Amino acid sequence: MFIESRQNERVKAARALSLNKERHARGLHRAEGEKLVHEAIATGQNIHELFVEDGFPTPSVSADTRLHSVTRSVLEAICDTRTPQHIVAIVQTPSIALPERYPAGLIVVLDGVQDPGNAGAILRSADAFGASGVLLSPDCADPFADKALRASMGSAYHLPIWRADIAPEIERMKAAGFLPLCGRLDGAEALPALPRCVALVIGSEGRGASPAVLTLCQGYRLHMPGRAESLNAAVAAGILLYQISKEMPV
Amino acid sequence: MFIESRQNERVKAARALSLNKERHARGLHRAEGEKLVHEAIATGQNIHELFVEDGFPTPSVSADTRLHSVTRSVLEAICDTRTPQHIVAIVQTPSIALPERYPAGLIVVLDGVQDPGNAGAILRSADAFGASGVLLSPDCADPFADKALRASMGSAYHLPIWRADIAPEIERMKAAGFLPLCGRLDGAEALPALPRCVALVIGSEGRGASPAVLTLCQGYRLHMPGRAESLNAAVAAGILLYQISKEMPV
Repeated sequence: MFIESRQNERVKAARALSLNKERHARGLHRAEGEKLVHEAIATGQNIHELFVEDGFPTPSVSADTRLHSVTRSVLEAICDTRTPQHIVAIVQTPSIALPERYPAGLIVVLDGVQDPGNAGAILRSADAFGASGVLLSPDCADPFADKALRASMGSAYHLPIWRADIAPEIERMKAAGFLPLCGRLDGAEALPALPRCVALVIGSEGRGASPAVLTLCQGYRLHMPGRAESLNAAVAAGILLYQISKEMPV
Repeated sequence: MFIESRQNERVKAARALSLNKERHARGLHRAEGEKLVHEAIATGQNIHELFVEDGFPTPSVSADTRLHSVTRSVLEAICDTRTPQHIVAIVQTPSIALPERYPAGLIVVLDGVQDPGNAGAILRSADAFGASGVLLSPDCADPFADKALRASMGSAYHLPIWRADIAPEIERMKAAGFLPLCGRLDGAEALPALPRCVALVIGSEGRGASPAVLTLCQGYRLHMPGRAESLNAAVAAGILLYQISKEMPV
């Protein structure tokens, strides 16, 4: 189907997915650009629709995917970026129920990380350092919002992402043998001996992790010999993930 | 002086500093909010003007600083943020000539890091891990642009920041005994023995460091056991700074 009107119903529905409530109500999100569309396809996501700029190649997708050829103007109307690439997919958001047992390894827990760029960058780091899943508090940024998904470079498709009240889940992880660690400025600078299961909690940039979560965790502070008092949340998370993943027994 | 018009000449001049060319032509930039104004004052920057919202306290500054009491509406007209805090300073941008000798220690070199948020976050990390200065290529983001300065949380006032063509400066550092290291995905995963002077090069997120710079540097790749192929530039820089600062002899 060829679409040249920005007022087309499919176009309006795709554009509306920039809103949180639309994404949640419909269980769909947008993947903009070749890299993200490729990751969505390669990881077997359910692609509902594909909008491709007229004259550009269409990747091979399942027969269930609705294909639209569109003008440049229509593509720009759909996308969040000002100068979009030539393709946008409407993707079913992976919905993962809380697991009966958390998978062994390193689980990243985000407590109130509200900046979508930070949330996405942390997912990307979690993926790079081999985390086995990510648990988000209800007030975290949506990892499938445009900016977060772009910042994750598709890592949101590689990891199970759960969303729940964090404190009871950390209790559950502790009961299953996880060591809950939290990066915090008033923590100890020595990393404890690490077991095979670690939950690493990253608090929000402004106020850190919530008090109920902090009481459940061992605090750990990165050694910072310089003058800045703290780090960007995504940077701090990246360093903690790097260091902890290196020191965990395989 | 009390200002209630958004058309006031001082207000218009302050607002214009959101433009690169205005900042460079006048050698001034804006520091928005209490944290940045405090850092500017505490580090002895030359504060030309201070705009304080009517009813909020004015910090003590030198007698040369022009003080303006302004309405909320005027403050919003000046600031880059949508909901600014109650104070904005117009600050003389520290202008640092290239040194005859680079200071010993860890020097961070940014080659084409164009995202202001990344540039600011890297300055913050460089400051936290005790770097002795930062060298920027001409195409890097301006560290005194609003977004970069906010992301640096004032660390731009703590470190000498130089700007120059990078390759000849790295040659100069090498001649002075610096080991130039560059984070790159095709580098070796083993960190060489580090001397007391290291230049750490961070390339742009999209294309890495430039070829002329790469030929001068030892490549180093962080070990990433997971699936993501790369990291956010600020996150990668933070991990490298953490690790290298820890392994350098004091």
